[in-house]
Amino acid sequence: MIALEEIRKLSHQSASRIVLLVLDGLGGLPHPDTGRTELESAKKPNLDRIAGESICGLTDQISPGITPGSAPGHLAIFGYDPLRYRVGRGIIAALGIDLELNPGDIAARGNFCTVDSSGTITDRRAGRISTETNTELCRLLNEHIVVSGTQVQATPVKEHRFVLLIRGEGLSPELADSDPQQVGLAPRRVEALSTSAQRTAEIANQFVSEARVVLRDRTPANMVLLRGFSQRPDIPSIPDIYKLNPAAIAVYPMYRGLARLLGMRLLPADENLAQQLETVHRHYEEYDFFFIHYKSTDSRGEDGDFEAKVRAIEEVDNALPQLLNLNPDVLMITGDHSTPATLASHSWHPVPFMLRAKWCRADPVTQFSERACISGTLGRFPAVDIMPLAMAHAMKLDKFGA
Amino acid sequence: MIALEEIRKLSHQSASRIVLLVLDGLGGLPHPDTGRTELESAKKPNLDRIAGESICGLTDQISPGITPGSAPGHLAIFGYDPLRYRVGRGIIAALGIDLELNPGDIAARGNFCTVDSSGTITDRRAGRISTETNTELCRLLNEHIVVSGTQVQATPVKEHRFVLLIRGEGLSPELADSDPQQVGLAPRRVEALSTSAQRTAEIANQFVSEARVVLRDRTPANMVLLRGFSQRPDIPSIPDIYKLNPAAIAVYPMYRGLARLLGMRLLPADENLAQQLETVHRHYEEYDFFFIHYKSTDSRGEDGDFEAKVRAIEEVDNALPQLLNLNPDVLMITGDHSTPATLASHSWHPVPFMLRAKWCRADPVTQFSERACISGTLGRFPAVDIMPLAMAHAMKLDKFGA
Repeated sequence: MIALEEIRKLSHQSASRIVLLVLDGLGGLPHPDTGRTELESAKKPNLDRIAGESICGLTDQISPGITPGSAPGHLAIFGYDPLRYRVGRGIIAALGIDLELNPGDIAARGNFCTVDSSGTITDRRAGRISTETNTELCRLLNEHIVVSGTQVQATPVKEHRFVLLIRGEGLSPELADSDPQQVGLAPRRVEALSTSAQRTAEIANQFVSEARVVLRDRTPANMVLLRGFSQRPDIPSIPDIYKLNPAAIAVYPMYRGLARLLGMRLLPADENLAQQLETVHRHYEEYDFFFIHYKSTDSRGEDGDFEAKVRAIEEVDNALPQLLNLNPDVLMITGDHSTPATLASHSWHPVPFMLRAKWCRADPVTQFSERACISGTLGRFPAVDIMPLAMAHAMKLDKFGA
Repeated sequence: MIALEEIRKLSHQSASRIVLLVLDGLGGLPHPDTGRTELESAKKPNLDRIAGESICGLTDQISPGITPGSAPGHLAIFGYDPLRYRVGRGIIAALGIDLELNPGDIAARGNFCTVDSSGTITDRRAGRISTETNTELCRLLNEHIVVSGTQVQATPVKEHRFVLLIRGEGLSPELADSDPQQVGLAPRRVEALSTSAQRTAEIANQFVSEARVVLRDRTPANMVLLRGFSQRPDIPSIPDIYKLNPAAIAVYPMYRGLARLLGMRLLPADENLAQQLETVHRHYEEYDFFFIHYKSTDSRGEDGDFEAKVRAIEEVDNALPQLLNLNPDVLMITGDHSTPATLASHSWHPVPFMLRAKWCRADPVTQFSERACISGTLGRFPAVDIMPLAMAHAMKLDKFGA
């Protein structure tokens, strides 16, 4: 891994174009009946053909054995070491609902919950109230709670979840959670973890105690829990590091938010991959880096639906000719982590990767799968090396040293 | 590599069990007649079958090209970067004879040696005196040498070797060796390498000069040499980092001492591997991590006896069914370094590794050998990644980030 500061010095703008297709949760595990993974089970002539013209490998997003969340999984692909660039829980939640964040804003993940008459938590999710109830409760909180000199705002997410935004001068995110993460305890006071966070702690505690009053008769959602206080991380942008003019085509808010955080322009997107690729076509002259995010592979994996994940991969394969027509200077197809249908969750297993370019030294791998990719030129490698490889093959990196 | 501090945050206790079998000095080199390594020459149907169900690779314990000592070789397997966690020569020697060490104690490796009438060393090992003579000389030293306010004690090891223990307040291990590591020179005064080590240097020098008097007529063992002054390292324990309840089954004192240093419980062990595995059976319900150390592969390699090392591997293979019966959630078999019989010493060659688990994405490797393992999913990888992989496959690690 080379530091972003070094890449910044070596990178230059040029006319070549890089297309990155991220199939979320791509990696899988063998089906117990067939011994074949989702990728090995899918009919995917286009993906296999591209593999034959590519350099292939398996990536670790964070470190061997570590299961990535979606944000660190993507950060690694874009070259940001997830162990160095942390994106807090509150920021992820805010990005996930397209909340505009200013530098200095504090975001926290909130839960509506149920407490009994003694103040003890009996349900951390308030029986998963409807999103409509949530929306009404957030409106109530925003109407009644005023903290002088500071803007405090609750924005509904799904069911019992909301985002608390605190905006003002001199705030600090160094706060412990109020959410004890278990029932049978009372919510904790928000503690400042540094003296500079004292005032922010007071604001958070004022919000919580006033929320308690406002929600008094709103059982089951008669209290709030807060966790993951965080600020927009101080993270250099993709245009700054790579001198790229990047565009993102992603449907889900978290990925859109993360792309925007890294300096990408958001292009229109819908659930249909063919439509997403159509968007690439339409804007191909305007940008030199395209990040296309495809969610179904992960969603079907999380569902534990092996066959549906196989079909999602086949859907991608069907749509690919449209992308291949553009013949991008560098085409990369990979995932942000594995989501084996047999586990029905993110996992630590390394992720198939391929890069096709005029100047790649294509290896003997002719199949795009977990077991085939390990024989590729890249072997098993850290995902943070992906962007330097892309930039090199796009002839956008200068020589290091004389 | 991910820092232990990160693993500490991600790890949690669970019912699954991890078994780690370390075949000391496992890696080898081809026999000049057959072109096959020790592993490639052995009949080992069980090891090969396990390889077929495992993820395989070759480990570097420290860094490519670096030959590990036994202590750093093992530290790496347990996840401790040997370049960060140093265990001094004196401490290794003390662990090797089951000496109890308190925090703050100083241990040094000692040699009885021969000096001539002018004080020049003529034999650094005093003609390898018998262990009995050594024991008598240590008794003499302990009887006659008293340093006020400090406990100074020599404990015999084998032949000419002993351990010097210095126990007291405010000691420092920042001392240079008195052993010049060659004949024809006089022993050096022990120099303090920092001002805070001044008093400890005086204590060591007082011990040496009084030993000179006590041993005056004891030719060939008429003087002592000291090296590797060190303290018990400040090293987090395996229960602390991994939330494991670990047990060690090892015969040789150094490995037992190291295991105890890392917070493992020592179970009864003898030279017979079948007996060691019987011990695992007997205590299987009490612990969730078992470290089994098998020494013969290394000893026969050090002897330069290729055939005997092959037989040692076959002995392991024969005993394995007993371990497989337990069907541990994660089974790992590897070595702490290579000891090729053709070199008759530790070497830098990477070490075969395999991990079998229900949730491993088994690779096409069907043979447990140096050349087969390099085609495995793990490729060539740092040994410090072994524990995160074990923990992941035992489902004992949380997701990193949201």
